[in-house]
Amino acid sequence: MDTEHTEKLIKSIRSIPDFPISGITFRDITTLLKEGDLFAESVDYLYDNFREKEIDTIVGIESRGFIFGAAMAYKLNAGFVPVRKPGKLPAETYAEEYELEYGADQLEIHKDALSKKNKVLIVDDLLATGGSAMATCSLVEKTGATIQGVAFLIELSFLNGRKLIDNYDIFSLISFEGE
Amino acid sequence: MDTEHTEKLIKSIRSIPDFPISGITFRDITTLLKEGDLFAESVDYLYDNFREKEIDTIVGIESRGFIFGAAMAYKLNAGFVPVRKPGKLPAETYAEEYELEYGADQLEIHKDALSKKNKVLIVDDLLATGGSAMATCSLVEKTGATIQGVAFLIELSFLNGRKLIDNYDIFSLISFEGE
Repeated sequence: MDTEHTEKLIKSIRSIPDFPISGITFRDITTLLKEGDLFAESVDYLYDNFREKEIDTIVGIESRGFIFGAAMAYKLNAGFVPVRKPGKLPAETYAEEYELEYGADQLEIHKDALSKKNKVLIVDDLLATGGSAMATCSLVEKTGATIQGVAFLIELSFLNGRKLIDNYDIFSLISFEGE
Repeated sequence: MDTEHTEKLIKSIRSIPDFPISGITFRDITTLLKEGDLFAESVDYLYDNFREKEIDTIVGIESRGFIFGAAMAYKLNAGFVPVRKPGKLPAETYAEEYELEYGADQLEIHKDALSKKNKVLIVDDLLATGGSAMATCSLVEKTGATIQGVAFLIELSFLNGRKLIDNYDIFSLISFEGE
């Protein structure tokens, strides 16, 4: 992706100060999503980085990861597997805890969603502290599937989330270097 | 869609008795989603019914509606607008309450997500009692946009949710006639 396109995507993201709490600048992607050409471009560019890799399944993290993940699954004719908050998936699941700034949260995957034969790309909108991404990688590993990469629309590089999952091929389309 | 394809899609949906509560049969679409060809087929067939209509934006209802909605937005090069649970959208919103079997819930849309010029297809995975679909139609109407149709993967026709939104063009790919 060239600088002109990156700039256009960055400009389309709305920054909301002090959301959800004071001191945090929230990067609102709804202003990008509502422009059809920008949304499609983002999905295409996100995939470009992994086009040399065999991928049969996209794993999307609830709930904004569903948006980019499902579009990419459709593009590749790949399966889509949701990683969800506790209690949402109705069959047997693996669960993984991860730390938040205050407290902890959990993510789940259906045990039979993936198997050893699957080659997976994990997709989410945002890499922040990396907790939910790391938990998702662990969940996919539990199923025996192979993680071919982890793709994010946005990376908040100053939070260093990347270091929690640095044994995988990580790609983010847009990086914010500070608040 | 012919009967053979419908049967294939229906068979791919897993029925889970007594989830989330006793007496409810949960239709689990994760077993459909993980098959790439079935997921892509579902998106294509869902759109087929509206192919005569001008559509520039897909509105998806949190969170399984994001999956089909985002894939369809990508397919059409249309914008994607999420309708979300309370407190998730960071800018100014319209809110709409709807009734659940016990109590009530609320959905929100960004006020500036749509305008009078937009032609919208609303997408969700499931039409049950119709509460969330009706609330979403009201939210879209508040923005001034035109609703070109409402698309569901599954309709639980015995719950008559359709009657709450029968002034719109409604289409569901799969119908379950009873529990």
